[in-house]
Amino acid sequence: MPSTAAPTVILVEPQLGENIGMVARAMGNMGLAELRLVRPRDGWPSEKARAAASGADWVIDGARLFDAVEAAIADCHRVLATSGREHAQAKRVIGPREAMRQARARIAAGQRVGLLFGRERVGLLADEIALAHEVVTLPVDVRLPSLNLAQAVLIAGYEWLLSEGDEGELLPFVTDLGSRPATAEETAGFLARLETELDAAGFFKPEHKKDVMRRNLRNIFARRDLTEQDVRTLHGVLASLVRGPRR
Amino acid sequence: MPSTAAPTVILVEPQLGENIGMVARAMGNMGLAELRLVRPRDGWPSEKARAAASGADWVIDGARLFDAVEAAIADCHRVLATSGREHAQAKRVIGPREAMRQARARIAAGQRVGLLFGRERVGLLADEIALAHEVVTLPVDVRLPSLNLAQAVLIAGYEWLLSEGDEGELLPFVTDLGSRPATAEETAGFLARLETELDAAGFFKPEHKKDVMRRNLRNIFARRDLTEQDVRTLHGVLASLVRGPRR
Repeated sequence: MPSTAAPTVILVEPQLGENIGMVARAMGNMGLAELRLVRPRDGWPSEKARAAASGADWVIDGARLFDAVEAAIADCHRVLATSGREHAQAKRVIGPREAMRQARARIAAGQRVGLLFGRERVGLLADEIALAHEVVTLPVDVRLPSLNLAQAVLIAGYEWLLSEGDEGELLPFVTDLGSRPATAEETAGFLARLETELDAAGFFKPEHKKDVMRRNLRNIFARRDLTEQDVRTLHGVLASLVRGPRR
Repeated sequence: MPSTAAPTVILVEPQLGENIGMVARAMGNMGLAELRLVRPRDGWPSEKARAAASGADWVIDGARLFDAVEAAIADCHRVLATSGREHAQAKRVIGPREAMRQARARIAAGQRVGLLFGRERVGLLADEIALAHEVVTLPVDVRLPSLNLAQAVLIAGYEWLLSEGDEGELLPFVTDLGSRPATAEETAGFLARLETELDAAGFFKPEHKKDVMRRNLRNIFARRDLTEQDVRTLHGVLASLVRGPRR
């Protein structure tokens, strides 16, 4: 199991290098070090990002580039999507304080926690939120609810810093699964196989509802605390169903 | 007693209009409305500030300009100075969570609470910190401790928003003084008179230690919870001492 000291910040399609740099600075301020970038619009590396990082060079230097959100979260045991918006998905919504206390306990138990942050104006898309176990919503005043990217990261990081020492309390809850939690990649592997089989069986009808049906299906599993063992069991279940009754 | 809905943010000699605007935006995000500016370097009003405020126009429009910190805090019953630095002053240091829970209770009791934020790089000067009842220090990682102004305000505002509903618990503590708290102006009025009398009596010797002696003296009173009645009593004490024994 990977040993990471803090949550991994994952920016999905950030636009301006300067914003990435300000995120890196906020991370440095709050003791977060690991940054992942999914398709940054203006490319990477970015000198504007480095300048805006105001000295958080280790965050910039260590940033890793990904082509897809799925790849960026593949090794995460827990994925939290930040979203300020109403979203129609059946997913638990928590505040940053609870999120970071929980992350602290998971990381103390050797798990990797990924925090997804969306594009500057549009945020995360529904399919990206569907990949997460839970949604984190930052409290804001309704009259001016839009936080910039670095501010959202700053608040998450602030709660991360304050959560130090809280892990003991939540540790039993987090580790009481009997087996280690599945990584996002393991869960995604099962879901891909399930969808392929269901597609072949003509499950996704009518065609125009396919996207919504897939997302709902993903959410059924994403919001569960699946362990590695659960995923293996589910693969077995799927294989049995597909094979049909033995003769 | 003034009725204010939230703490007053007081920026001391902010430099860039853009930074003031980002502070206004962070305030708007977190439900803080009242902004006071002490000697902003680039003048006021500022179009750069308005642009950076990203829609927090009511904060910009309501901002008030002051020539001195003393004037900006005059009507405050409680003054909190934010400082990330070690300061040699004997003053209680609290975190933003405790600070905003306390502010919530004071404001619910009809008091006005001022939050002092210093210059972009230099922060608050020792004499400015001496004007505050307590120092608020934001938790940051030691490797990159410098927060920008808007981020510091954002975290204070975030804790303000989260403190909603907490006032009941602290209200008895805050209002159990028997009389309303003195405003900064009332306390300053007494201190000015005390210093004048002490100066006349040759108290501030040697001359080169005068500044430190004055600051220490101010801190003795600033860190107490002085009520309006206390200040009146202190004036009486001072008058008696100056007058000397009646014959």
